[in-house]
Amino acid sequence: MKQSWLVQITLGICLLFTGIVNAQSEDPLPSWNEGKAKQSIIKFVTAVTTPDSADFVAIPERIATFDNDGTLWAEKPMYFQLFFAIDRIKQLAPQHPEWKEQEPYASILKGDMKAALAGGEKAILDLIMATHAGMTTEEFSQQVTAWLAHAKHPKTQLKFTDMVYQPMLELLAYLRANDFKTYIVSGGGIAFMRPWTEQVYGIPPEQVVGSSIKTQFEMRGDTPVIVGLPELNFLDDKEGKPVAINQYIGRRPIASFGNSDGDLQMLQWTTAGKGPRFALYVHHTDAAREWAYDRDSSVGRLDKGLDEAKQKGWTLVDMKQDWRVIYPSQMAQ
Amino acid sequence: MKQSWLVQITLGICLLFTGIVNAQSEDPLPSWNEGKAKQSIIKFVTAVTTPDSADFVAIPERIATFDNDGTLWAEKPMYFQLFFAIDRIKQLAPQHPEWKEQEPYASILKGDMKAALAGGEKAILDLIMATHAGMTTEEFSQQVTAWLAHAKHPKTQLKFTDMVYQPMLELLAYLRANDFKTYIVSGGGIAFMRPWTEQVYGIPPEQVVGSSIKTQFEMRGDTPVIVGLPELNFLDDKEGKPVAINQYIGRRPIASFGNSDGDLQMLQWTTAGKGPRFALYVHHTDAAREWAYDRDSSVGRLDKGLDEAKQKGWTLVDMKQDWRVIYPSQMAQ
Repeated sequence: MKQSWLVQITLGICLLFTGIVNAQSEDPLPSWNEGKAKQSIIKFVTAVTTPDSADFVAIPERIATFDNDGTLWAEKPMYFQLFFAIDRIKQLAPQHPEWKEQEPYASILKGDMKAALAGGEKAILDLIMATHAGMTTEEFSQQVTAWLAHAKHPKTQLKFTDMVYQPMLELLAYLRANDFKTYIVSGGGIAFMRPWTEQVYGIPPEQVVGSSIKTQFEMRGDTPVIVGLPELNFLDDKEGKPVAINQYIGRRPIASFGNSDGDLQMLQWTTAGKGPRFALYVHHTDAAREWAYDRDSSVGRLDKGLDEAKQKGWTLVDMKQDWRVIYPSQMAQ
Repeated sequence: MKQSWLVQITLGICLLFTGIVNAQSEDPLPSWNEGKAKQSIIKFVTAVTTPDSADFVAIPERIATFDNDGTLWAEKPMYFQLFFAIDRIKQLAPQHPEWKEQEPYASILKGDMKAALAGGEKAILDLIMATHAGMTTEEFSQQVTAWLAHAKHPKTQLKFTDMVYQPMLELLAYLRANDFKTYIVSGGGIAFMRPWTEQVYGIPPEQVVGSSIKTQFEMRGDTPVIVGLPELNFLDDKEGKPVAINQYIGRRPIASFGNSDGDLQMLQWTTAGKGPRFALYVHHTDAAREWAYDRDSSVGRLDKGLDEAKQKGWTLVDMKQDWRVIYPSQMAQ
């Protein structure tokens, strides 16, 4: 009896080791087609995690930062956060009769998005303030969660959180399996992302960096609350991204991932550090399965970044060539 | 031969388990005297980590936030960061002949600290801007590290990083051993703390929240840098602490630790959440081994917080009674 118990332990240990070896030899990026992009990722991760490699990087320094819109999920025909803001405007309209005469609200209520967004960044900021401020952080978080549970994308009819990129989910998991800490550093709203990034990307709220409005601590009777104010606190885009990385993380990433000129400074900041560095641009080249856009797009423009990526030898993902599937729902097909 | 190999594995496994059991039964807080404070800590940690307890808290929600000055290290006769600023003023004085006529610099150069700080918060902010801005983040970090390596406290003649509280180091380690994520949320400068908190407290830069000046991303030739500007970005004190917790962490802590009225809102915010919560004030009662101060102190005043702690039953650490030693160097004595 005792003998058999010992044998079972030994067998168990052997099976455990076999399992580890098998896991390592499996393809960590099954939705990536073989090619330069996939090779460059695996080569970098292998180099920085191999203890006797000259490029070995200690675990605490394995920081990887990801843009969100257009890098981890889609961003067409407009940023998904704007769909949320527009639905909120329609919901709040009965309490704001003045919006019928006031842009950008009037055009939104008429369903004319082109006219609504003609005011550019100012119009977008007005929309964000009108829909994101004036409530507690917990109320806002609940609204985002409730909206995501039912809202559908107008073209794909998918839920917005089902329009995340399967190959990027695999990349996030692969990096974390190699002891990277994965962060989002997005121009999108920090309070809009945090309610769902842990469930969808495996990225907890404290590893989400984004744009924000100012907030204020208040006592309501005996209950403390934090309330959003209609004033921009920080715009986490372009030069703002390295500034935010320094402010929130306080370390320079060794790998950064983006898809637009808004990510260029983050990639520059990342690759200017000492030791092995990795920068990757997702290039939207797939008009059939997703969208094809770069130098001339108003949303997610990739122009200067495309030149710099080629010049500096950063990894360029050709979505059409490099990705076997786009969305998780296509995995079963 | 094979039999003996199996026996060795079994013995090894048994020893391993014995080791784990022993580690758990050892006192996790050896520098804390037995008493209410120590009991309340262990009771809370046991409750939130016992899987079948009604108070069990999932690991990702185990966030603990600590003030720094007066909570993790000493703060008398003035904040240690001010000693750094003053040494920098003296170092920079030859390049600033105008400081001989200008307060607070003139008084500092004459060695009259009382006059220098008579200007209150404004004078302190001027000092911080003059010594923390106008250089890259990496240059500033190197200055802090170089200063800490040689600077000594005027009363104890200890290095400043040797004036951390041994009982609090044990508390940090105890929480982390129970899968808490430990954060600093301090009124002190984020850039002043991050260069050394990992080594001294085991708290990595990305878990340090503090006050900050504005920064700017710049290209110097081909090299991107982040430069400090002489403008306050965020004051992480009082109402600012819950605001910063929301901004940086995006979750409400389940436990918070402070020593002054500047921490009161953080403790209120923490304890107002649902489920088990823990709030602790370090009360400086030990004039012989450290300093004794509370309601009338300009640095680290504990007045409203002391009343609220008693009223709400928060844990009050009586430094003189509850701590067997103060600094790590006293451990061997």
